[in-house]
Amino acid sequence: MAKNKRTAFFISDGTGLTVEAIGHSLLAQFRDQQVEQVTLPYVDSPEKVEQVLTRIEKAAQESGLQPIVISSIVSDRIRERLHRSSALMLDVFESYLTPLANLFGSDPAQSVNISHGIDNDRRYSERIDAVHFAMDNDDGRRVREFERADVILVGVSRSGKTPTCIYLALQFGLRAANYPITEEDMDSTALPKILRPYRHKLFGLTIDPERLMQIRQERRANSRYASLEQCEFEVRQVEQMLRRAQVPYLDATQLSVEELATRLMSQAGIERRIG
Amino acid sequence: MAKNKRTAFFISDGTGLTVEAIGHSLLAQFRDQQVEQVTLPYVDSPEKVEQVLTRIEKAAQESGLQPIVISSIVSDRIRERLHRSSALMLDVFESYLTPLANLFGSDPAQSVNISHGIDNDRRYSERIDAVHFAMDNDDGRRVREFERADVILVGVSRSGKTPTCIYLALQFGLRAANYPITEEDMDSTALPKILRPYRHKLFGLTIDPERLMQIRQERRANSRYASLEQCEFEVRQVEQMLRRAQVPYLDATQLSVEELATRLMSQAGIERRIG
Repeated sequence: MAKNKRTAFFISDGTGLTVEAIGHSLLAQFRDQQVEQVTLPYVDSPEKVEQVLTRIEKAAQESGLQPIVISSIVSDRIRERLHRSSALMLDVFESYLTPLANLFGSDPAQSVNISHGIDNDRRYSERIDAVHFAMDNDDGRRVREFERADVILVGVSRSGKTPTCIYLALQFGLRAANYPITEEDMDSTALPKILRPYRHKLFGLTIDPERLMQIRQERRANSRYASLEQCEFEVRQVEQMLRRAQVPYLDATQLSVEELATRLMSQAGIERRIG
Repeated sequence: MAKNKRTAFFISDGTGLTVEAIGHSLLAQFRDQQVEQVTLPYVDSPEKVEQVLTRIEKAAQESGLQPIVISSIVSDRIRERLHRSSALMLDVFESYLTPLANLFGSDPAQSVNISHGIDNDRRYSERIDAVHFAMDNDDGRRVREFERADVILVGVSRSGKTPTCIYLALQFGLRAANYPITEEDMDSTALPKILRPYRHKLFGLTIDPERLMQIRQERRANSRYASLEQCEFEVRQVEQMLRRAQVPYLDATQLSVEELATRLMSQAGIERRIG
């Protein structure tokens, strides 16, 4: 813990992913503040809570600043122990379980583990199949199961197609293929022949040529592939191609993979398969 | 909206992923309740709020049950409009921004968009590189850059290595390779030669043979590969191999990809590269 730097702890008895995401989005509203961020998952026993409490108090003493705890602890018993800390406590379950329990007229289960019944097995299979589908149908290099695809991403090399497909598979169970538009496809601004039967499944990614150059330079410095001229040419050609074929597209320059995936689904009206 | 079924809306001016995760974990505490769950991302204009309000009131009327709204809306203006709804409102930003603003002694920024400075460019590159690394080093079929790997997952075919590697890359920027232990490696319970120089980077996944059989049956029904006998043999051999080489491992049977990834990191002491 750095001196004079406040610490925010994201604490959970599960993976900590949700509470970490909440913490990131809340702290992003206070950019002028220097805050050390620490995620502590699987705090699910009295012994672990004690270790966490010690760590929180240490951060408080070393920095001289009250720490922040953002937590989601299912068990009352564990949560109560954690709340003995001197930190500012923002507890998602504490805030919201009571109003929900009142609404439902029933008590929360206080169980951390998700049941692994048939529903979850199905969900698991859908996810895994979708991930393998995305990998097998990446970059047009390999299998092309465009028939089975929910969506086919098209765009120039390094416009963000691969991670977006992978994310669509993992998060939403969607079968996302991708096809890179290469120079061979750019003699005309008509869609490459192989894509034409699937026009209704296509979604384009475009990108600012300078940003593309920067990304490609990291991969193959000083190549023609990474030159600004080449990047400008390819992006222009692909944008014309997408407009001409009336394929919807997004500009990937300023968007994270999560944003690309969710905006694409909402723009193209694609429903998740799991979730 | 089904009659007599309550609806929970997860509403955000961003991707909606965080608030949806909060909603899922809260509602998981009330399994006896039938709740239709609807995520509405990118609610970032007065017009969109009006559409959402109409939708919420429609759900209330059709079901006769008060809807639930779990939301994270950064803008005060948009949030106030949403709060005119008759739903039970659980608003993450409303609950937590005020205590944080008091602690920091400064006002929240009220900006939805994450700035895309150098930090985010670096984060973007790390993620993308990690995803490509995971894909290139999947299943031992292709490139083997074990030298560069942060972790190498080992286990029988279909024990969950691939999605876990992909998730480690996307979420944490980790370079995760994997190597399937196949029958050829099972003549002895010593580690395969190719893995020995990397013993300190290895992490094992094991799985219940019956669950493995079920997964493999979906892939190649009635094959020897998917027989219970074969699954039992492979799992037993690999567990002996891992124990003998003192490679840490997790049982993947009951764990989601998120749980596998986060537990593995915490057990092996692997730090994230991004986040």
